[in-house]
Amino acid sequence: MEDTLTLCDVGNTSYHFLRGEAVSKFLISDFNTSSIEEAVYYISVNPEVDTKLQALENWYDLRDTITWNQYYETMGVDRIMACEAIEDGLIIDAGSAITVDVVTSGAFEGGFIYPGLDAMLETYRRISPRLDYSLNFELDLDKMPQNSQDAISYGVLRTLYSEVMRHNKQIYLTGGNAKVLSQLFPEAIVDELLLFKGMKKMMEKRC
Amino acid sequence: MEDTLTLCDVGNTSYHFLRGEAVSKFLISDFNTSSIEEAVYYISVNPEVDTKLQALENWYDLRDTITWNQYYETMGVDRIMACEAIEDGLIIDAGSAITVDVVTSGAFEGGFIYPGLDAMLETYRRISPRLDYSLNFELDLDKMPQNSQDAISYGVLRTLYSEVMRHNKQIYLTGGNAKVLSQLFPEAIVDELLLFKGMKKMMEKRC
Repeated sequence: MEDTLTLCDVGNTSYHFLRGEAVSKFLISDFNTSSIEEAVYYISVNPEVDTKLQALENWYDLRDTITWNQYYETMGVDRIMACEAIEDGLIIDAGSAITVDVVTSGAFEGGFIYPGLDAMLETYRRISPRLDYSLNFELDLDKMPQNSQDAISYGVLRTLYSEVMRHNKQIYLTGGNAKVLSQLFPEAIVDELLLFKGMKKMMEKRC
Repeated sequence: MEDTLTLCDVGNTSYHFLRGEAVSKFLISDFNTSSIEEAVYYISVNPEVDTKLQALENWYDLRDTITWNQYYETMGVDRIMACEAIEDGLIIDAGSAITVDVVTSGAFEGGFIYPGLDAMLETYRRISPRLDYSLNFELDLDKMPQNSQDAISYGVLRTLYSEVMRHNKQIYLTGGNAKVLSQLFPEAIVDELLLFKGMKKMMEKRC
């Protein structure tokens, strides 16, 4: 496998590239696909971008490499690639949504979707101007909150934490908010290249 | 205490009345306060309505009955009234927001705020059109989801459930979505009058 391969993971809000060892990120609204001439191996969870990319000759959709009976039909391809990257563990991919997937002995067990951290805070703000707070990551997870910022931080973070910890698995953190969330999960492995690793593995399997 | 007392709980979206034993509910936009001539004992978490009601002579704010050093300054008065209604337990008030409060031997331990069920579904829709689903309340809570509707239902409900169950308390369910949530918490006591009971208790204490 060439090290100079260009991989791209298209999310709800951005294009995320890996070229050799260099990572770059562009907002969907800011990026012009014609600026890239080489072959791009990509996955996309964005229906609008999907349609656009399918018309391009040098963009190859890795969706076709997936063994679908191991997953479910409407599952995001990004989640599948992350699952392919590990043998056993729980993956938290924290972006505009937070996906949590469990892999046991190489097999996908199932997973759930939680809103992203920014989306959650926006949700509170929309419910009431009195619920407009930022997250406190220094929150004491073992104490019921006694102030508004902690009451919201706990609502967002402790609920997720209680469910994640229940599975007793090695945690892998990836996505734009991986580092931020690692404050909550200090034992987790932070790997911002997890999806790309899964994509490379899938290409190797098929070549 | 008169049984014909008029109590009102003003939330983010509606006025909720108890007159004697009759309960009624009005959207904030639809309700005209001058339609009521008798004395109304109320609480409100809605800043706009607050200002309006303070100018009315027959509306009495029960905020003044609260012993504030037992709670925290910015805590919603509705949550406080629910806490006053019980001696020990965990209260889930499921409305436009879901508040979860723990009371032990008559003392408020702390609590958190989770977005309401509708607000959560709206959040997923806003993240991506691919995440537009209703909740499946028949979800198997002990199995990691293998389809999109369950992945979202689990994200909303299982996270909340995992955290709530951790406290090992008698659960009290109140608010507009109390009945819906009782599918998730079959052992819970559903009491749609919980806040009003707390309000009455506070009035008795002060009279």
